[in-house]
Amino acid sequence: VIDLTEGVQSVLESSGVENGIVSVFVPGSTAAVTAMEHEPGGVRDLRATLERLVPAEGEYEHNRLNNDTNSHAHIKAAVVGPSETVPVRDGRLDMGTWQQLVLVDFDDRPRQRTVVVQVLG
Amino acid sequence: VIDLTEGVQSVLESSGVENGIVSVFVPGSTAAVTAMEHEPGGVRDLRATLERLVPAEGEYEHNRLNNDTNSHAHIKAAVVGPSETVPVRDGRLDMGTWQQLVLVDFDDRPRQRTVVVQVLG
Amino acid sequence: VIDLTEGVQSVLESSGVENGIVSVFVPGSTAAVTAMEHEPGGVRDLRATLERLVPAEGEYEHNRLNNDTNSHAHIKAAVVGPSETVPVRDGRLDMGTWQQLVLVDFDDRPRQRTVVVQVLG
Repeated sequence: VIDLTEGVQSVLESSGVENGIVSVFVPGSTAAVTAMEHEPGGVRDLRATLERLVPAEGEYEHNRLNNDTNSHAHIKAAVVGPSETVPVRDGRLDMGTWQQLVLVDFDDRPRQRTVVVQVLG
Repeated sequence: VIDLTEGVQSVLESSGVENGIVSVFVPGSTAAVTAMEHEPGGVRDLRATLERLVPAEGEYEHNRLNNDTNSHAHIKAAVVGPSETVPVRDGRLDMGTWQQLVLVDFDDRPRQRTVVVQVLG
Repeated sequence: VIDLTEGVQSVLESSGVENGIVSVFVPGSTAAVTAMEHEPGGVRDLRATLERLVPAEGEYEHNRLNNDTNSHAHIKAAVVGPSETVPVRDGRLDMGTWQQLVLVDFDDRPRQRTVVVQVLG
């Protein structure tokens, strides 16, 4: 679970947009973008809860048909979703103090991820 | 679960935008924005189902590390997500007749919430 | 689970927008929009997992109060959400190779669905 907030804020600043929205999107079908308080306890709780509800081990057709192991990651990513849209006010992300934009990678192998940030105003 | 539709429609009207999108976002990491049919049964079902899947009581690291009680609210909010984007046509939110924009507050103490609405067209 | 990617790409092309975002939204409160690898195994896994977590059969107030049968569909749709926002680069949806925009219809009767696509750039 990676905190994207500073990186997105920095893209926003270089755009010069003062009022509008920022759209954050992760390409790939085993990771998701959402917002949360990015602290170690909450990160572990989110992962553990999703693992309890959608366990890595199970009877998954995606794994069977494709000789794969990460069906659980696909399901979690589809439910959480790949995009969030955040308002911009006075050149700042208008979020809560204890709220961060995060990338959650659900895959079971190391992946290099790129997040796409679009600023509109 | 608060119905935001009329308030968002009213912001939209004062913007004068006829075609585009409205982005709705809740600051804070224990509430979420989504859409649903806002009627008492559906509201109770949504809350009861999420409480069954992510119970308030449980072994949560966020609660343990921060001497807190609302880890379940953080998890639910991260899964449902803080933002939705709704299309605008002819100055109206282009939603279903029995579909409302809603704020779902998962926290276990009373909170004052502000929802941020951005109109782009 | 319907793959929307080609249709959305075609709307995008007719808009002439080269850089910006596409917002995809489904009116109605028993269907959702998300992204996933659209292949038979993953589609079945997503449906089966959500059916396990939020079964069609159950004690639902929406069903009792409205003499209805699709409360589970309302809950699933509210959790997955009705909208996604996808970045546009050089006139193309900037998504992963194995990632498609999909409509997931959770209802238990046949429904005709319209998806609203807005392009901003």
